[in-house]
Amino acid sequence: MASSRKIINDPIYGFINIDDELIFQLIEHPYFQRLRRIRQLGLTGLVYPGATHTRFHHAIGAMHLMHRAIAVLRNKGVEITEDEALSAKAAILLHDIGHGPFSHVLEDTILIGVHHEQLSLAYMHRLNGEFNGALEQAIQIFSDTYPKRFLHQLVSSQLDMDRLDYLTRDSFYTGVSEGIVGLERIIHMLNVREDQLVIDEKGVYSVEKFIVARRLMYWQVYLHKTALAADGLLLSIMRRARYLVDGGKEVFMLPKLAYFLKNRIQAHELSSDPTILDRFNELDDIELYACIKYWKDDVDPVLAYLCNSLINRKLPATRFQETPFSDEQKDAEIKQLSGRFNWTEEDCSFLVYSGLAANEAYDSNSEKILINRKNGELMDLVHASDNYNFSSPNRVVRKYFLCTPK
Amino acid sequence: MASSRKIINDPIYGFINIDDELIFQLIEHPYFQRLRRIRQLGLTGLVYPGATHTRFHHAIGAMHLMHRAIAVLRNKGVEITEDEALSAKAAILLHDIGHGPFSHVLEDTILIGVHHEQLSLAYMHRLNGEFNGALEQAIQIFSDTYPKRFLHQLVSSQLDMDRLDYLTRDSFYTGVSEGIVGLERIIHMLNVREDQLVIDEKGVYSVEKFIVARRLMYWQVYLHKTALAADGLLLSIMRRARYLVDGGKEVFMLPKLAYFLKNRIQAHELSSDPTILDRFNELDDIELYACIKYWKDDVDPVLAYLCNSLINRKLPATRFQETPFSDEQKDAEIKQLSGRFNWTEEDCSFLVYSGLAANEAYDSNSEKILINRKNGELMDLVHASDNYNFSSPNRVVRKYFLCTPK
Amino acid sequence: MASSRKIINDPIYGFINIDDELIFQLIEHPYFQRLRRIRQLGLTGLVYPGATHTRFHHAIGAMHLMHRAIAVLRNKGVEITEDEALSAKAAILLHDIGHGPFSHVLEDTILIGVHHEQLSLAYMHRLNGEFNGALEQAIQIFSDTYPKRFLHQLVSSQLDMDRLDYLTRDSFYTGVSEGIVGLERIIHMLNVREDQLVIDEKGVYSVEKFIVARRLMYWQVYLHKTALAADGLLLSIMRRARYLVDGGKEVFMLPKLAYFLKNRIQAHELSSDPTILDRFNELDDIELYACIKYWKDDVDPVLAYLCNSLINRKLPATRFQETPFSDEQKDAEIKQLSGRFNWTEEDCSFLVYSGLAANEAYDSNSEKILINRKNGELMDLVHASDNYNFSSPNRVVRKYFLCTPK
Amino acid sequence: MASSRKIINDPIYGFINIDDELIFQLIEHPYFQRLRRIRQLGLTGLVYPGATHTRFHHAIGAMHLMHRAIAVLRNKGVEITEDEALSAKAAILLHDIGHGPFSHVLEDTILIGVHHEQLSLAYMHRLNGEFNGALEQAIQIFSDTYPKRFLHQLVSSQLDMDRLDYLTRDSFYTGVSEGIVGLERIIHMLNVREDQLVIDEKGVYSVEKFIVARRLMYWQVYLHKTALAADGLLLSIMRRARYLVDGGKEVFMLPKLAYFLKNRIQAHELSSDPTILDRFNELDDIELYACIKYWKDDVDPVLAYLCNSLINRKLPATRFQETPFSDEQKDAEIKQLSGRFNWTEEDCSFLVYSGLAANEAYDSNSEKILINRKNGELMDLVHASDNYNFSSPNRVVRKYFLCTPK
Repeated sequence: MASSRKIINDPIYGFINIDDELIFQLIEHPYFQRLRRIRQLGLTGLVYPGATHTRFHHAIGAMHLMHRAIAVLRNKGVEITEDEALSAKAAILLHDIGHGPFSHVLEDTILIGVHHEQLSLAYMHRLNGEFNGALEQAIQIFSDTYPKRFLHQLVSSQLDMDRLDYLTRDSFYTGVSEGIVGLERIIHMLNVREDQLVIDEKGVYSVEKFIVARRLMYWQVYLHKTALAADGLLLSIMRRARYLVDGGKEVFMLPKLAYFLKNRIQAHELSSDPTILDRFNELDDIELYACIKYWKDDVDPVLAYLCNSLINRKLPATRFQETPFSDEQKDAEIKQLSGRFNWTEEDCSFLVYSGLAANEAYDSNSEKILINRKNGELMDLVHASDNYNFSSPNRVVRKYFLCTPK
Repeated sequence: MASSRKIINDPIYGFINIDDELIFQLIEHPYFQRLRRIRQLGLTGLVYPGATHTRFHHAIGAMHLMHRAIAVLRNKGVEITEDEALSAKAAILLHDIGHGPFSHVLEDTILIGVHHEQLSLAYMHRLNGEFNGALEQAIQIFSDTYPKRFLHQLVSSQLDMDRLDYLTRDSFYTGVSEGIVGLERIIHMLNVREDQLVIDEKGVYSVEKFIVARRLMYWQVYLHKTALAADGLLLSIMRRARYLVDGGKEVFMLPKLAYFLKNRIQAHELSSDPTILDRFNELDDIELYACIKYWKDDVDPVLAYLCNSLINRKLPATRFQETPFSDEQKDAEIKQLSGRFNWTEEDCSFLVYSGLAANEAYDSNSEKILINRKNGELMDLVHASDNYNFSSPNRVVRKYFLCTPK
Repeated sequence: MASSRKIINDPIYGFINIDDELIFQLIEHPYFQRLRRIRQLGLTGLVYPGATHTRFHHAIGAMHLMHRAIAVLRNKGVEITEDEALSAKAAILLHDIGHGPFSHVLEDTILIGVHHEQLSLAYMHRLNGEFNGALEQAIQIFSDTYPKRFLHQLVSSQLDMDRLDYLTRDSFYTGVSEGIVGLERIIHMLNVREDQLVIDEKGVYSVEKFIVARRLMYWQVYLHKTALAADGLLLSIMRRARYLVDGGKEVFMLPKLAYFLKNRIQAHELSSDPTILDRFNELDDIELYACIKYWKDDVDPVLAYLCNSLINRKLPATRFQETPFSDEQKDAEIKQLSGRFNWTEEDCSFLVYSGLAANEAYDSNSEKILINRKNGELMDLVHASDNYNFSSPNRVVRKYFLCTPK
Repeated sequence: MASSRKIINDPIYGFINIDDELIFQLIEHPYFQRLRRIRQLGLTGLVYPGATHTRFHHAIGAMHLMHRAIAVLRNKGVEITEDEALSAKAAILLHDIGHGPFSHVLEDTILIGVHHEQLSLAYMHRLNGEFNGALEQAIQIFSDTYPKRFLHQLVSSQLDMDRLDYLTRDSFYTGVSEGIVGLERIIHMLNVREDQLVIDEKGVYSVEKFIVARRLMYWQVYLHKTALAADGLLLSIMRRARYLVDGGKEVFMLPKLAYFLKNRIQAHELSSDPTILDRFNELDDIELYACIKYWKDDVDPVLAYLCNSLINRKLPATRFQETPFSDEQKDAEIKQLSGRFNWTEEDCSFLVYSGLAANEAYDSNSEKILINRKNGELMDLVHASDNYNFSSPNRVVRKYFLCTPK
C-alpha cells in the first residue's frame, strides 16, 4: 500500500504526522469527516467566542498524544507491538465518533436511551467490516477486553489521552489559561506496572495540577452558568418542537432530523437496522442549527421565543442553590411568566428548566490513578500526595441550577 | 445609561473589555450576532482544521486593537476625543458586518454586483437609524469623509487594525506560525503626522516583517491550493444549483437562500427595498451548508457529485501555471472527464474551473506606509527601508490555477 | 523635566512602558542596576538551565503589574491619585532592592541578622534623600503606614504583584508550565472593599488555581531537592571560608566581599554607618562566584572540594524524611565520609548539612484573601470556595532533608 | 554502561531527553559546564533584560534539534546509522564550546588570532582523548571530512541546527517576537538529495521567512546600536587595561585573566602547550565582570570611567552612516571630549570607537540553500522562490557606526 503520509497543522502541537495508512483512511472516511461539523463544546461558543473547535480536531489531537505516550512507554521498556500501537491509535481516534449534534446535550434525545459510547462502538464495528477486520484489536482495546489492559487505560481512564487533549484544547480555544496542564511532563511520567498505567513518582505534582485544572475547567467552562442556560435552552427547544409535532402541528423540519424526532428510534433498533447508523451519520450541528434558525420565525410563539433567544443570544438567567429546586419554586416562576407573556402556564413551563451541575475532582472509587514510587511501591494518588487537597477526594460538588428568561 | 461592562475572553489577547455602552449594544444586536455563524476563513478549515474562528471574533479583536492603538496615539500627544475614539471603535467593529456566507467566495453570487463593503455601509446606516444617529461619525470615518483622516486609516489602509487582527488571528487558529507579526511593537510605533497614520522609524523592521508575514499567509493559507479548490467547488455548486433551477428542475432549497438565488437581487434594490437587508441577515454558513448536505443526495448526479466532494472532503486537484489556462486546456480536461464519468461535456464543465491567485506584498501605488524618521522627514516604506526586499515592491505575483477532479 | 519615555521588552508581557520620570530615574540608578547582577533564582539555574533571569527584570515586571492593577481598580471606581499610583509603583519596584548575592541563601550570612526587607527599606530611605523626598509616600506604602492600606496589600500580601510576577516569571524561565497562573484574570478581578484588596467572586477559581500553582512551584522549583543541595553547598562553602579565615589561614578573597566576611557587620551598624549600604551595593552574584572559582583550586582540600562541586555541578544527594535528621544520623554520615576521604570528622562535617523545606499553600492565620461576593459579603477564600482543597488550609507541609556527597 | 537518562526542562521545547551516555558525559564535563557561565548574547542583556540565557542552554537546544532533524530524515528514508546520529549530536553539542567570555566580542583579544571554532576543535580533540576516541566521527563531521556531507551541513550551513536554535532562543529570551521562525515546519521539510541537505519544496515559504527573521534579528538585536555601544565599550576597557599594564601601571587583575592579558598567547601555542586550553577553560563572563567591577574604582580615571559606564549602564551614543567614519570625524570627537573631560587626547581616544555592522540576508556565493522541487529538480532558493525579495540576494547591508560618550 502506498505511503499516504500527511501532516496536519495543529495550533497546539505544531505538526501532527499521519504515518499509518489505516489511520489516514479512517480520517478520510465520511463517518469521521462528519466530526468536522460538530463543535467540541457545542453552545459554549456563546460564552467563549474562541471555542469553535470541532470533535474532528480533538480526536486527531488525542490520537497524536497516544502516539507520543506509546513512544515514551516503549522508551521505558514497555513492550507494545506495532499492531498494538496502531490499534490504540485507532481506538482513541474513534472513541468519540458516536457523538451527535451539540455533543452531550442531545444524547438520549435523538436516539432514545443510547449513550454516545454505544454509538462509537457501533461505528467501529461497521468500519471494522469495511476495513476487513483491521479494527478488531482496536475494538478490544476500546471495550477493555484486550489482555494488555493499560492500552485501554490510555484510551479511557482518569488520566487518558482523551482528557489530556480536551483539557488542553478547550483551554487553548476558550482562552481560559487556568485549564493548561503540564502535558509534556505528564506524558513523560507515564509508565506501566503490573499491566496498569501508572505515573512515575516525579510526576505527582503534575498530576495533582491536572486534577485541579480539570475541576476548574468544569466550573469555569463546562458548567459555566451561561453555558448551562444555553444547553437547557436547546433541550427546551427540542421538547417544544416534539410537543408541537405530537400535538399534530405543522413544524418546519429538515428531513434528516425529522426522521429521528418523529420515529423515536430506540437503542435496540440501532443493532437490528443497519440503516439507522447511516441516517445518524447525516446529523450534525448544522442540521439542528438550520431548523432553529427557521423556528425562530415559527407561528408557535413559544418555539419562536426560545429559538430567537438562542440565535440572537438572549440567554436565560441561571441561579444556583445547594438543594434541588422544588416544584413550588418552579411553579412560582412559571406563574409569573404566564402573567408577563400572557401565555398559558403549560406554555411557560418550556421557559423554565432546572438541573444539576456536579463535578468530582478525583473519583477514588473508580479506577485509581496509581503512583509508581521510587521504592517500587504502587500507591493511590490520594495517599502518594503530600497534598491535603485530596483528604476528601470523593466529595462531589453539586450545584442545582434554575434557568428563567431575563 | 447604566454601565454594561463586559469582559470577553480571547485566546490571543487575553481579556477584551467592553466598556462603552454603544459598543456593547452593537455586539448584542442580531445583525452583529449573525457573524457568529460565519467563519472567518470559510472552507479553509478543510485544510487547516483549527481555522474554525468566526467573523464575530475577528471584529471584536480588531475593535480591541483600535482601543489600544488610540491609547498609544493619545500617549504621544495625538488629540482624539472620546467621541472620535468611540466612533473609530464602532467603525472597525462593523467594517465586515456585510460579509455573507463563506465570506468572500459568494460575494457577487448572492447579491449581484454588491461588494461586502457596500453591505457593511448599508448595515451601518440601518443601525444608525436604530441608535438615533449615534453612528454618524463612525460612518464618516468608515467612508473616509471625516476630517481627521488618520482615523479612517486605522480602519482601512495597508496597516490597519483589520489586517493586524486577521493576520494574527488566522495565524493563531491555523497554527501557521509564519503569520505571526510583531503586533505589540507595531502598535507602539504608530503615530500621526500631518493627519496621516505613520510608523515611527524604530518600527521599520516590524513593518517589513508584517509585510512578509502577510505575503506568506497569502500563499500558505489564503491562496493555498486546496483552499482554492474548495472555494472553486463551492462556486461550482452554486452555479449548478442555479443552472438546475433555471432549467426548471426541482431542487431542495432552504427558503431564505432560495429567495436570493431565485430573485437575483441587484445592487440598486438594496437601497430601494429595506427588507432586502433583513433577508440578507438571515443568511449564514449554516444556511448554505444545510443545502449542500441535502444536495449531495440530489437526483442530479453532477450536483450530488460536487456536494459530496465538499462534504466528505474529496477535493479536486489544483495545478498552477504562470499564464492563464486556455480554453483548449480546459476543454481537453472536460472531454476526458466526459469519458470517465459518462456525462455530457456540458455537465462536466461544472467539474473544471480555473482562476487567478494573485498577491502583491506592498502596493506603493495605493496609499503608502509612511515612516516617521527621527530627522522629521516622512518617507515611503520602500525608501526608508534598507531592505532590498522592496526594490520592486509593486511586482504582483500571479499564479493561474486549474482545478479538476482527482 | 523632559519626558524619558522608554519601552522595555519583556518576553512575558510584551512591552513595558516606563512613563514616569521618577520610575525611569530609579531604574537608571546604580542601586537598581545592581539587580542586573543578581539572579532571581540563584543557583536554581543548575537544575533548570533556563532560570537565568534577574531580580532586575522581576522588579520591573512587578511594577508593570502594579500599573495594570491600578488601571483595573480605577476603572471600578476605586480612587487612586496620580501620586499614589506613582508611589505604589516605586514601592514595588524597590521592594526587593535589598537582596544580596544569591538572594535568600546568604541572607543573614553577609549582614548578620539583617533581613532583605530591612535593607530594601534602607535603600529606599537613601534614595528618598537623593530624590528630595519623592519616595516619602512609597516608603509609607511599603511600610504599611499609609492610610489607604490596600496599596500596601498590592505590594505585599498573599496575592500581591510581587507573587504574581515571580510565579509567572519563574514558571516561564524554568519551563515548568505548572506554575502558570491566570494572571490576566486575577488582575481583572481585583477590587477594593473597606480599604482592603479583595477579589471579585467571579475570580475565585483563578485564585484557587494561583494557590495550587504556587504550592507546586515550591515543591517543583524553589524546594527542588537538587536546588536545596546547591543552596546548602553554597552555605557550606561560606562557612568553610570563614572557618579558615578565623583559623588564621590565608584565603583568596575579593576585597568587597572580604569586608563583610571579616568584619561581621551587624544590623545596628547599617543605620549608624552610611557607608555600609554603599559597600553592600558592591556585592552581587559575580563577586561570590569569582571567589568560588578561585577557591576550587584552594590549598584547603575541603574548600576546594566544595567549590569544585558547585562550579562543575557535582552536587550532593538529598534525601527527605518527615522528622528532623538526628545528630546520630548526621554523625554516621560524617564518620563514613571521614573514612572515604581520609579527612578529619570536623572537616567532613562541612560536607553534610540538613535543613527543613516547608510550604504552606495558604496561610489563613495571616492576612486573608478576601472574596467580594455578589451579595455584598466579604468572605475568607477558605469559606468562599466550594473546594475541599481548603478544608485544612493551614496545614504546613514539612520535609526535612539531609545532603551528603554522592 | 548504566543508563543515565536525564530530562532537561527547556522553556522553548518543553523537555529535552538525554538518552545517550556519551552525550550525558559530555554535558557533565567541566569543559561543557563552563558554558553555563557564558551568556549567549553577552552584553545584549543591557538592552533586552530577558536575554540572560547561556551558551550551555543553546548548545543543548541545538543538540535537541539535531535529534529531531535526524528522526525526520530517517523517516524519509535517509540512512543515518546510530553512530552517525550520535556523532552528529556530539558535534553540534560541542560546536560552540570554544567560546570565551562575552562570546564574539573578545575573540582575538584573549587568544590572539584564534577564532572560537579553532578552540572548539581543540576542545573536541582533547575530549576525544579522554573518551578514548569516541568523538572521532564527530570531529570529522564538524571538520567536514566525513563522507556523508549533509551531516556537516546540519551542524554548519546557512540552515543548520545552530541557527535554528539561536534564532528561536534569542527571540524567545529577548522578547523580540519578530525573530520567531517556523521551526517545526522547517525541520519537517528537511531532506537529503545527492548527499546534500535540502528543503522540500513545500517548505520554501518557511525558509524565506527564516531568512527575513534572521535579518531582522541582526538589526534589531545582534547589531542593535546600544548593543554595539556596549560591545565597543568592553573592547575599549580591555584596550585600556592592557595599555596600563604595558605602561607598567599596577592594575587589579584576577590571575586567570591576567595570564592571558600579560602573556599574549598566540595561536600556535594552543597546539604546542596543552595547559593553555585548561587555562582558557577557567575564563568566563564572571572572570571579566569581576575585574570590571573593581576597575570602575581604579585610580586611572579613564579605566574607571569606562567601567563605570558599563556597570551602571551609562552607555555611549551610537550614530550610523553609510560610509566609514574618517579619522577627521573621530579626531574632532576626541578633541571635544578632551576639552570636556580635561584629559589628554590620547586618553580620550579610548572613549571613541567606530566599526562596521554588516549583514547579508542570504549569501548565494557560499553554500546555497537548495530546494527539492516536486519535479525532482534541485534549485537555489533564489530561483525557487517566487519572491522578488531575493532578486539581489548578495547585497550586504553595511552600517558604519561611531560611539561616543553621551
